[in-house]
Amino acid sequence: MKRVVECVPNFSEGRRRGIIDQVVGALASVEGVRVLDVQSDADHNRSVVTMVGEPEAVEDAAFRGIERAARLIDMDQHRGEHPRMGATDVVPFVPIAGVTMAGCVEMARRLGERVGRELSIPIYLYEEAATRPERRNLADVRRGEYEGLKVEIETDPHRTPDFGPARMGKAGATAIGARSPLIAFNVYLDTDDVAIAKAIARAVRHSSGGLRYVKALGLLVEGRAQVSMNLTDYRQTPIHRVVEMIRKEAARYGVAIVSGEMVGLIPNEALVDVARFYLQLDGFSPDQILENRLAE
Amino acid sequence: MKRVVECVPNFSEGRRRGIIDQVVGALASVEGVRVLDVQSDADHNRSVVTMVGEPEAVEDAAFRGIERAARLIDMDQHRGEHPRMGATDVVPFVPIAGVTMAGCVEMARRLGERVGRELSIPIYLYEEAATRPERRNLADVRRGEYEGLKVEIETDPHRTPDFGPARMGKAGATAIGARSPLIAFNVYLDTDDVAIAKAIARAVRHSSGGLRYVKALGLLVEGRAQVSMNLTDYRQTPIHRVVEMIRKEAARYGVAIVSGEMVGLIPNEALVDVARFYLQLDGFSPDQILENRLAE
Repeated sequence: MKRVVECVPNFSEGRRRGIIDQVVGALASVEGVRVLDVQSDADHNRSVVTMVGEPEAVEDAAFRGIERAARLIDMDQHRGEHPRMGATDVVPFVPIAGVTMAGCVEMARRLGERVGRELSIPIYLYEEAATRPERRNLADVRRGEYEGLKVEIETDPHRTPDFGPARMGKAGATAIGARSPLIAFNVYLDTDDVAIAKAIARAVRHSSGGLRYVKALGLLVEGRAQVSMNLTDYRQTPIHRVVEMIRKEAARYGVAIVSGEMVGLIPNEALVDVARFYLQLDGFSPDQILENRLAE
Repeated sequence: MKRVVECVPNFSEGRRRGIIDQVVGALASVEGVRVLDVQSDADHNRSVVTMVGEPEAVEDAAFRGIERAARLIDMDQHRGEHPRMGATDVVPFVPIAGVTMAGCVEMARRLGERVGRELSIPIYLYEEAATRPERRNLADVRRGEYEGLKVEIETDPHRTPDFGPARMGKAGATAIGARSPLIAFNVYLDTDDVAIAKAIARAVRHSSGGLRYVKALGLLVEGRAQVSMNLTDYRQTPIHRVVEMIRKEAARYGVAIVSGEMVGLIPNEALVDVARFYLQLDGFSPDQILENRLAE
């Protein structure tokens, strides 16, 4: 089976096309790496790149992207709405096929060590690669952002990086980690009452007592109440369980689901899991999928 | 997008391993062809081979298989439970990816012409490749089997083959055609009353007023009532519509579905369609599936 890792580095430049192109060019220059998507946001002043390939190639591409961004982006000049602490702000590795989470954690640590040593950029390992529980959550790692961390990194021992120097240059600091594929999934309701979407979001999301790997918000989108979600581990909390819970909660308000919406890319396995649930396929094996046999 | 055709030739030998191996070897000898499965049945005295590859390679492999089977299998000596009329009995081409049904019909006609001309085997085009409505159905084409057709082919103008001579040698005749991927799907009920499975089979199958592309039987399998089905065109009659109809019919008898079972291979698209239905994904595009992007 072919080994495939996804990597979604976030760079602190979303306005100057020339700089974005150079950073993306550095990623794409590595043989065997494919850049699937580049989302640049001017308000956030940030670009999110999705690339895939064999582990070694993706790890090398991430290094080159970090190196290039460090040369081109000056965090002392950076302004944007999105929280950030470095020219390359965050680098998550995501196991897709033939690679384990443990393998992605190893990649994160090896890359972190190399970036710290060769580029003198402070590195914090996060999520599955975190070395301490309080560094699992990216928001905690990035607290104070570039400006705050610049001071604290030299004075507060709790903020000493995992790799690299305990002082920041103009490239700031970078969080490197490993996580499960993230699914951005929205559900539209047949009501314009956003209060219902908010109540359902509270019911299904982890932070207020709901499902372990669900983040959710209630929004009003083009006149319709929407439950907007990030499913952060579809293997542990599968999509169908989330949808059926929303269906039940919505029915309690006399409301139905009008449609579902996948934003961006989704692993095929997550959709196959949905089919297996509704068709009650107990003994089904992924080997029975024709395309999987072709890919062998 | 890579072009992939599936071909499922049936050969009239299910007992002598040496002969089966030689025929399968002839198929597999063509570069770019992959033999995914070989099912040999001694009672039927028949082998069903599943192979895939680019259209040109698969068409060439089918020719070599027919040629080899004609040399090794003598239909005058053949006995078996399954209806048959030739050493190579039937050769369906199935469009999988980047190939249309019309493309598979062309393959069937080109192969039929070549086999008729080079090997002097009578060829009947069937299903989507049929040249007359009464030849669409394989059972009609094969009526009288090898022994009956041997006489009728020379005397009855309605039985004149599409290609090749109007007389049969020891290799018999071959049906070559094109069809949609077939899904073998069974549903188990929480009852041992086979009458309920039979009633549900009658309700869902085309032949007795049900869904257009469903063949169904009610059986008792290991003490459980089973609705055993062939879904002959999942794009026109999707799996979820069949399952939901069975669920409703079963409930009318106070019975529930215990589990579903896929037999053999299933195209990924058929499972994705199920997920799209239950998640109500109106705007979903297959481009959003990560693996499809990787395969581009």
